[in-house]
Amino acid sequence: MELGSTEMMIVMEEKATAEDVGRILELLESAGARGHVSTSDVVTVIGVMGERDVVAGLPLEAYPGVDKVLPILRPYKLVSREFRRTDTVITVGGTSLGGGHVALIAGPCSVESREQLLEAAAIAKRGGATMLRGGAFKPRTSPYAFQGLGIEGLEILAEARESSGLPIVTELMDPRHLEAVAKYSDIIQIGARNMQNFQLLSAVGEVDRPILLKRGLAATIDELLMAAEYIVKEGNSKVILCERGIRTFETATRNTLDISAVPIIKQRSHLPVVVDPSHAAGKVDLVEPLSLAAIVAGADGVMIEMHPTPETALSDGAQSLDPGQFATVAARIRDVVAWAGKTMG
Amino acid sequence: MELGSTEMMIVMEEKATAEDVGRILELLESAGARGHVSTSDVVTVIGVMGERDVVAGLPLEAYPGVDKVLPILRPYKLVSREFRRTDTVITVGGTSLGGGHVALIAGPCSVESREQLLEAAAIAKRGGATMLRGGAFKPRTSPYAFQGLGIEGLEILAEARESSGLPIVTELMDPRHLEAVAKYSDIIQIGARNMQNFQLLSAVGEVDRPILLKRGLAATIDELLMAAEYIVKEGNSKVILCERGIRTFETATRNTLDISAVPIIKQRSHLPVVVDPSHAAGKVDLVEPLSLAAIVAGADGVMIEMHPTPETALSDGAQSLDPGQFATVAARIRDVVAWAGKTMG
Amino acid sequence: MELGSTEMMIVMEEKATAEDVGRILELLESAGARGHVSTSDVVTVIGVMGERDVVAGLPLEAYPGVDKVLPILRPYKLVSREFRRTDTVITVGGTSLGGGHVALIAGPCSVESREQLLEAAAIAKRGGATMLRGGAFKPRTSPYAFQGLGIEGLEILAEARESSGLPIVTELMDPRHLEAVAKYSDIIQIGARNMQNFQLLSAVGEVDRPILLKRGLAATIDELLMAAEYIVKEGNSKVILCERGIRTFETATRNTLDISAVPIIKQRSHLPVVVDPSHAAGKVDLVEPLSLAAIVAGADGVMIEMHPTPETALSDGAQSLDPGQFATVAARIRDVVAWAGKTMG
Amino acid sequence: MELGSTEMMIVMEEKATAEDVGRILELLESAGARGHVSTSDVVTVIGVMGERDVVAGLPLEAYPGVDKVLPILRPYKLVSREFRRTDTVITVGGTSLGGGHVALIAGPCSVESREQLLEAAAIAKRGGATMLRGGAFKPRTSPYAFQGLGIEGLEILAEARESSGLPIVTELMDPRHLEAVAKYSDIIQIGARNMQNFQLLSAVGEVDRPILLKRGLAATIDELLMAAEYIVKEGNSKVILCERGIRTFETATRNTLDISAVPIIKQRSHLPVVVDPSHAAGKVDLVEPLSLAAIVAGADGVMIEMHPTPETALSDGAQSLDPGQFATVAARIRDVVAWAGKTMG
Repeated sequence: MELGSTEMMIVMEEKATAEDVGRILELLESAGARGHVSTSDVVTVIGVMGERDVVAGLPLEAYPGVDKVLPILRPYKLVSREFRRTDTVITVGGTSLGGGHVALIAGPCSVESREQLLEAAAIAKRGGATMLRGGAFKPRTSPYAFQGLGIEGLEILAEARESSGLPIVTELMDPRHLEAVAKYSDIIQIGARNMQNFQLLSAVGEVDRPILLKRGLAATIDELLMAAEYIVKEGNSKVILCERGIRTFETATRNTLDISAVPIIKQRSHLPVVVDPSHAAGKVDLVEPLSLAAIVAGADGVMIEMHPTPETALSDGAQSLDPGQFATVAARIRDVVAWAGKTMG
Repeated sequence: MELGSTEMMIVMEEKATAEDVGRILELLESAGARGHVSTSDVVTVIGVMGERDVVAGLPLEAYPGVDKVLPILRPYKLVSREFRRTDTVITVGGTSLGGGHVALIAGPCSVESREQLLEAAAIAKRGGATMLRGGAFKPRTSPYAFQGLGIEGLEILAEARESSGLPIVTELMDPRHLEAVAKYSDIIQIGARNMQNFQLLSAVGEVDRPILLKRGLAATIDELLMAAEYIVKEGNSKVILCERGIRTFETATRNTLDISAVPIIKQRSHLPVVVDPSHAAGKVDLVEPLSLAAIVAGADGVMIEMHPTPETALSDGAQSLDPGQFATVAARIRDVVAWAGKTMG
Repeated sequence: MELGSTEMMIVMEEKATAEDVGRILELLESAGARGHVSTSDVVTVIGVMGERDVVAGLPLEAYPGVDKVLPILRPYKLVSREFRRTDTVITVGGTSLGGGHVALIAGPCSVESREQLLEAAAIAKRGGATMLRGGAFKPRTSPYAFQGLGIEGLEILAEARESSGLPIVTELMDPRHLEAVAKYSDIIQIGARNMQNFQLLSAVGEVDRPILLKRGLAATIDELLMAAEYIVKEGNSKVILCERGIRTFETATRNTLDISAVPIIKQRSHLPVVVDPSHAAGKVDLVEPLSLAAIVAGADGVMIEMHPTPETALSDGAQSLDPGQFATVAARIRDVVAWAGKTMG
Repeated sequence: MELGSTEMMIVMEEKATAEDVGRILELLESAGARGHVSTSDVVTVIGVMGERDVVAGLPLEAYPGVDKVLPILRPYKLVSREFRRTDTVITVGGTSLGGGHVALIAGPCSVESREQLLEAAAIAKRGGATMLRGGAFKPRTSPYAFQGLGIEGLEILAEARESSGLPIVTELMDPRHLEAVAKYSDIIQIGARNMQNFQLLSAVGEVDRPILLKRGLAATIDELLMAAEYIVKEGNSKVILCERGIRTFETATRNTLDISAVPIIKQRSHLPVVVDPSHAAGKVDLVEPLSLAAIVAGADGVMIEMHPTPETALSDGAQSLDPGQFATVAARIRDVVAWAGKTMG
């Protein structure tokens, strides 16, 4: 029985009438979709076939007699594994991420000064990092906390790229800064709190830079993939997903690293995925075990906060490795990457 | 013993040394703060006194020997009940919210057409609503869903205000639209997904319009109050907080309405709070019980999705009341407001 | 098209083969069930029809080619609203709960002494409570906390029933105490931590006492109803459900009261539901607003912790009302019950 | 300043009076504890010193003027890393777990028949498992699901131990079965739903068998350690902790594996910890990546569901490895254990 693409199943209430079912079939027809009815002694189920864009917009749950609507197909297309079977590989400044290439992205939470960042870049390079991170614009929960150096921070990042040879990852928070951030950075980061800032997603979908998209604190994996779809839909297919912990009831860690998200994303999408153990745990001691766990679970990279002198950091000092700790952790990461049969960068 | 304002307590690890404690005291001193040490046979605790802005920025958890840092004072000031004992009352277009005045904000999720909105405004007015809601810019999880009419939608909202006499509440998603949204609306809504879009918060802190700030899906009450502090800090003290459900493991409702947030916010802040039962539950049947619960728990208003014909709605049809349902629910709300000894609008 | 009762839909992976589908149809047939296949250009869906007990036990998700299994029917029967349309009413000791009768269950967390409980019973009676609560066996997170008086506590409860005329609600934690608890109490409480202690559920299913079943901290509404089904299945149909807050990321309250559970349970089940605002919030100040919210949302009762002298309580003192507070809250509850058109007890 | 062991800090409300403070100091004194008051221009903080058992039982939050009570010391003692610095190692039937010894515990969810279990034992042995798991008593969410073979299942397990030489891990659900389960098993498992079944915990604290204690779905790490303290307090210090996923909003996996719990538990406790990736993920495909992640994060073992023929399993078939899958995963686990410098069993 050939039905077209079944997008969803509508389960009717037990008390639903034939008129209720008829009204839904009419709605589907008027939208160019089709319904396939299965009636039993207890319940009626309608399979809906049609174009995703159309069917997704129908207010089916508002119809009388509808109990629930169960989605059959995943709500994204361009980022799905079905759309592209081979892994997407992102290459910037001579280093790669994805498809067997593992990135080690390291650097301070915030760019605080020229000296601080150049030193951090040198430490990162020495430890084998393949990319340098650092925030010029900082999203802070408290309005009284340090908010970043802004454009000046971007210029310092560009200088650090020159001195270290490492590509730069930095965050964009406001569409009004897009041009400046794109000018100075190699990869544009969208932070967890902006994962569903849809205007920002659409904006970076039109720029020629890879996007590192962090999962929101309360976002499901499918919502993360839908956020990526916003970007890819505008033409920018270079998206790196980042698992950085979700919010749960557990307070022993800042967030709960959802390690299962790594293999799940790999199954559902062709996009690469990295893990940020520093923000997930919020503790220096956990960076090594979580980094190793991320790699063996299949991650294409880890992003680690490191600071020349964490005890003077203006933000996230508690979770930043110092130079010695970073060297140790980086060596262990290189070692487990080799064990996993992959290559750094 | 007079110590100054104790901002936090630092609990040291059992293995912490006198040097560890000394280093922290030096840091505090260099920052113009002070530490008060209590040593026992098991653990050392340091009480930290100083200016909040300074102390909050110190990377205390990064210091060797620190087990945990416990905040003593709440991390906001201007929005706190201690800062202002009397309830903030918001008045727009002759109707009030807060301090015994209860708002009934009703209207469709999205502005879909001139006809739809003018009819919705008339239904709202007839049912006793005190304000009209409707979205011109719509944040949608899926990039394939209806995204709103934009500026045209704002013009239609302005027309509906003329015809109904009801003040307009509409959402701002992008700082680039601020001028337009401020021009056409009476109250600017910041959506749940943008609760920590700090650039947007700062931007609306400089405009002369009350802000309706929705709680993020994974935001704590204190984080909501800190987001409000971002706005008030810029000079705009007219902020209305909105509880609209948080994300939990329960799937029977779209979100879990945190009804306790209403009395908790009332204790901690002088700002008014409204409840959005439509987005919390995602179901028409729950709008009445949750609205009544909100009022008796102390909310200063409810915000309800209503549509002239929910079954044709381009968004959120499943949770929109139809005109008959709205009239019934509105009557019950008016009744319970009277029971609670408050007044509508 | 007559199919029998459709229990679930199996969604196949895109890469599933005809053999994969064939194997599932064979399994269904061998189990006396049937499958109805809908094939399209993208995905194949199999509707499964058969006896619930049989179909629920099939390891369908283990079969090659299966993407997901979507349940169509709810996983309980005897407690469902479909099974019985009219509300279940529980009557003990001349007072009722359910079907328009609202219970006010009050008393201390633990029975601490004869004097304490008899005084609490008198205060409860005076304030208009319809039942008396008190724990003889106490589940405590810490092994160093007070664990209850045991059998002696039960005897004191029985004496308090005599003196006050109020029926007794007390908790059972261990099947070995069932006989004793059933002997001395009018209603047996199963605590939140034991909601899925299935041996205990089955045991109380065979006793002639109403059961007050508290929702687990991480239990969905449907899991609560399945736990109730365990009891009813053994022959005891007198089950009262209790919403007492779920565990979420929010720390401002001990738990998050899921007020929406009240109307949802009413839709899905004929069993009565009460709310415990004391354990949900963990704060005295929130007991009144949450009690009122529970009643207007449709609850059949509230269960409130009250203590003659909360500052000497051996457990839960922080959330126990003192006699004056209780009198005030009880009066407000009686008032809102009248507003809602219901009767006390 | 020598103060004794500071158990907690009491933060007073800003409006608290000197009388409020005085009343608390009196309470502390009457309980043999002491309070140390720090007063400032904004807030008063009282440090509480005394015996944990006494202080933990005081209803401090019930006192007028108290804002919050912050615990300083962790609420467990015997299981803490401070109590014992060296790792606890559990040895049964010639194989060890903890302190560099990694266990591979494998077997079916339920014992279904003699043939099934003996075959499973042989497969486990062949794949290098060090222990055999299998449930004779099964906790099931639905009363209509298979509940296990009971005592007969235990006898089959004992036979499988003979044939394979592998020690047996099996679950105890009811204190009335303790003798039988202790007789036939080498390690007694307490399931997630019974983690706070305190009667059961106390009961197994008196038996001479190691206990494998699974973390509850909504239990914090500290609550898991307090549950272990219940057991150790009764004299049984052989407790193995098990992380098996917590309940969150994410639905892509059955539960969210909290991988960070492994290093956190290692920091806080001397007890060994194993990971159950099968129950955490609920999916065969995730067992390998999560097992590897667990080992490199520091786990002392993994517990994996495996079945001779998963498609006929009476429970958890969807997450059970078949013999071929198990051989592959077991080989990878042995390989990563060697990489980590540890030994199997």
